[in-house]
Amino acid sequence: MPDGAQKTVQILELNAYGGDPQSREQSPLLKRRLRNAGASSVLFYREPIEMVSGSGAWMVAANGKRYLDFYNNVPSVGHCHPHVVAAVADQMARLNINTRYLNARVDDYLDRLKSTFPSALSNVVLTCSGSEANDIAMRVAIAATEKRGFIVAENAYHGNTAWVTEISPAALKKRTLPDHVIAIPAPASGPLAGKNFAASVERAISELTARGHGLAALICDSIFSSDGIFADPAGFLKEAVEKTREAGGLYIADEVQPGFARSGDSFWGFGRHGVEPDIVTMGKPIGNGFPMAGMATRPDLLERFCREVGYFNTFGGNPVAAAAGMAVLEVIESEGLQENARKIGGYLKSRLEDVERTTSGIGEVRGAGLFVGVDICSDGRPDAKKTSDVINKLKDKGILVGAAGLFANTLKLRPPLCLTQSEADIFADALRDALST
Amino acid sequence: MPDGAQKTVQILELNAYGGDPQSREQSPLLKRRLRNAGASSVLFYREPIEMVSGSGAWMVAANGKRYLDFYNNVPSVGHCHPHVVAAVADQMARLNINTRYLNARVDDYLDRLKSTFPSALSNVVLTCSGSEANDIAMRVAIAATEKRGFIVAENAYHGNTAWVTEISPAALKKRTLPDHVIAIPAPASGPLAGKNFAASVERAISELTARGHGLAALICDSIFSSDGIFADPAGFLKEAVEKTREAGGLYIADEVQPGFARSGDSFWGFGRHGVEPDIVTMGKPIGNGFPMAGMATRPDLLERFCREVGYFNTFGGNPVAAAAGMAVLEVIESEGLQENARKIGGYLKSRLEDVERTTSGIGEVRGAGLFVGVDICSDGRPDAKKTSDVINKLKDKGILVGAAGLFANTLKLRPPLCLTQSEADIFADALRDALST
Repeated sequence: MPDGAQKTVQILELNAYGGDPQSREQSPLLKRRLRNAGASSVLFYREPIEMVSGSGAWMVAANGKRYLDFYNNVPSVGHCHPHVVAAVADQMARLNINTRYLNARVDDYLDRLKSTFPSALSNVVLTCSGSEANDIAMRVAIAATEKRGFIVAENAYHGNTAWVTEISPAALKKRTLPDHVIAIPAPASGPLAGKNFAASVERAISELTARGHGLAALICDSIFSSDGIFADPAGFLKEAVEKTREAGGLYIADEVQPGFARSGDSFWGFGRHGVEPDIVTMGKPIGNGFPMAGMATRPDLLERFCREVGYFNTFGGNPVAAAAGMAVLEVIESEGLQENARKIGGYLKSRLEDVERTTSGIGEVRGAGLFVGVDICSDGRPDAKKTSDVINKLKDKGILVGAAGLFANTLKLRPPLCLTQSEADIFADALRDALST
Repeated sequence: MPDGAQKTVQILELNAYGGDPQSREQSPLLKRRLRNAGASSVLFYREPIEMVSGSGAWMVAANGKRYLDFYNNVPSVGHCHPHVVAAVADQMARLNINTRYLNARVDDYLDRLKSTFPSALSNVVLTCSGSEANDIAMRVAIAATEKRGFIVAENAYHGNTAWVTEISPAALKKRTLPDHVIAIPAPASGPLAGKNFAASVERAISELTARGHGLAALICDSIFSSDGIFADPAGFLKEAVEKTREAGGLYIADEVQPGFARSGDSFWGFGRHGVEPDIVTMGKPIGNGFPMAGMATRPDLLERFCREVGYFNTFGGNPVAAAAGMAVLEVIESEGLQENARKIGGYLKSRLEDVERTTSGIGEVRGAGLFVGVDICSDGRPDAKKTSDVINKLKDKGILVGAAGLFANTLKLRPPLCLTQSEADIFADALRDALST
């Protein structure tokens, strides 16, 4: 709960998708949904879509219309991938228990997952959500440093628990951060990205020290998804991480969005930057939609946290989750999805740069692999309204895409990693058309 | 994070199961587990069991030994129930998306789930874990009351996020509660249970007011599982809830453990007490092991919370979870499991009362339906060591059971709701033998 002095950052509504729920054509299902979920209901689009099935990069609506999914990075190896579905179904029929018993499938998975990490990060806590993972990560950092200050990016989103919401400016409608959290601008593109970001970190450290909190951790989504997707130049995190360590803080890499091969260059987002985190958190694509997540760290850091709290997670680390997670790793490898993300992501980016050159609505195309951001602008300025229009036009053309960024004007492209070249073409053609009409 | 003055409550280690991990016979799998999970590894028993399969009330270990599961209330309709497994496998193969799209299966489930609640609790937020549900519940209570004080039972456990850990004395190794949380004794059995509990609540309200926090909510697991299982006399919560409301606070019923028909008398634990909560949280048995949970409340309360935070849960409320949850409700109804819990639970209790009369080790038998507590004592006093011995003896006899209570001397019995009379006999006979030798 926030206490003491507070810092207000820019207030901005990020809802680029839907209008006022009251103004929507209310289908019987929409009425039921609003009745059941009430104020917590957040729906995409001026007219929300009823989805009924999915396969590969596609979903099908109740009215039969097919949609190319460029939005959802959870079903990352493809919607309803048969290998993942079969693994979950098989293990669910055998056994689903908690971690207080031994089960070989769980450790088979953890061994394989850990093989993707720097060897120092040898302890993994499996949870149900990326939010739970970041909630632990914060406490691990506090236990290790005996400080409570956190540095986050300006429009960061790290999850939905009470604590994690406090380090997620994008989720706070009033944009009021507690005193022990300082938000700094995400590293913009360009050769000075790393220097500027490190300088912001340094100023934030001084401020946290002046406020009496000290520094527990710098936490970054290593591709700055909700800030608008900033990936280049690779390496820009390095100096900021050094400054963090010099001040006694930890570096938490939130890999919930960029992790699991999406960036193409490396399996983890931090890998592109040549840095080694103290803590890594994972979520979304880890189980291709099966609710699971995790945190990896060094044994000494985990041990300090566990001295204070008897941590147990009822569902986290159950053998069904392990089966889902293992199947995802197997598919990424057997289908060469990291290489596909690199190759098709590169192709997509070059096609979008063509669109940028031949239309007037794009400010910049950024990203790595199949995590791409496209700034929508008018007269060189961010245009959230136009972005929302483009998103709704793309929807009419059968393509799903979201928005991000402090000005809600960045198209956030995160298609499944199995995307084909012709699917990349479909998107690029549709975006060109949407910007031209 | 705790701040300001702090209150220290009794320190007590609740680990009645395992000894020092160092002293354990370390099988290759145990070694891998300790290497992978590090300090976060909590394992049952002096020699942990490697489990490989489960069905009904039984699990099978890697060495072929069968175990009757009296511990785990997650697979509540029976391990690997085929109807739940089929529902999950079917929906996973069709579609697994987030709640930003409409999906009829989700609202079919919510409609049915809500039919078990008082009609005022018409909004449901689906999450991944009971911890996430309680984490939201706390914030809903704070947003509604603009106060921050919480009253919890002395050995309560409500989950594992940073905030929820603060209201979970059982999880805090140093038993240090933050200033805005007051722990009170759980209602002991007997005719004065309700009066005494209400008096404790009243004193806690005065103290929270004196400390300047005021009362946000009284939160109770309505069968006080980790305090030692207190169920009778039904109605004992009533007066405390009245005191809470008079002081402007909310009553949060944590149904993560007692919910979904386990108490036999009613579908929800609070139902036995004739009280209507402002917020209900659910978890563990809701999906028979599929990671899901939820919070139900009144629309006005949810709306106040959502004014401040844009809450979204990536996995919560996906159609696969809805399929699992619906299948659980269908099985409870089609197999008459609430009635079975009432009937077999009553039979089990009467058999255990026989054991109490004919041996010297039992202090009291308590509970409702298939949620039963058995106090293990020596010379009329709680005996944690003997309880741990009994648990390990039962394990050797092929029965799994846990401990609870402030003195770690209450056997906590929570078998699947499909338990048969002969399985109840197996347990009662084994307990008699374990106490006699």
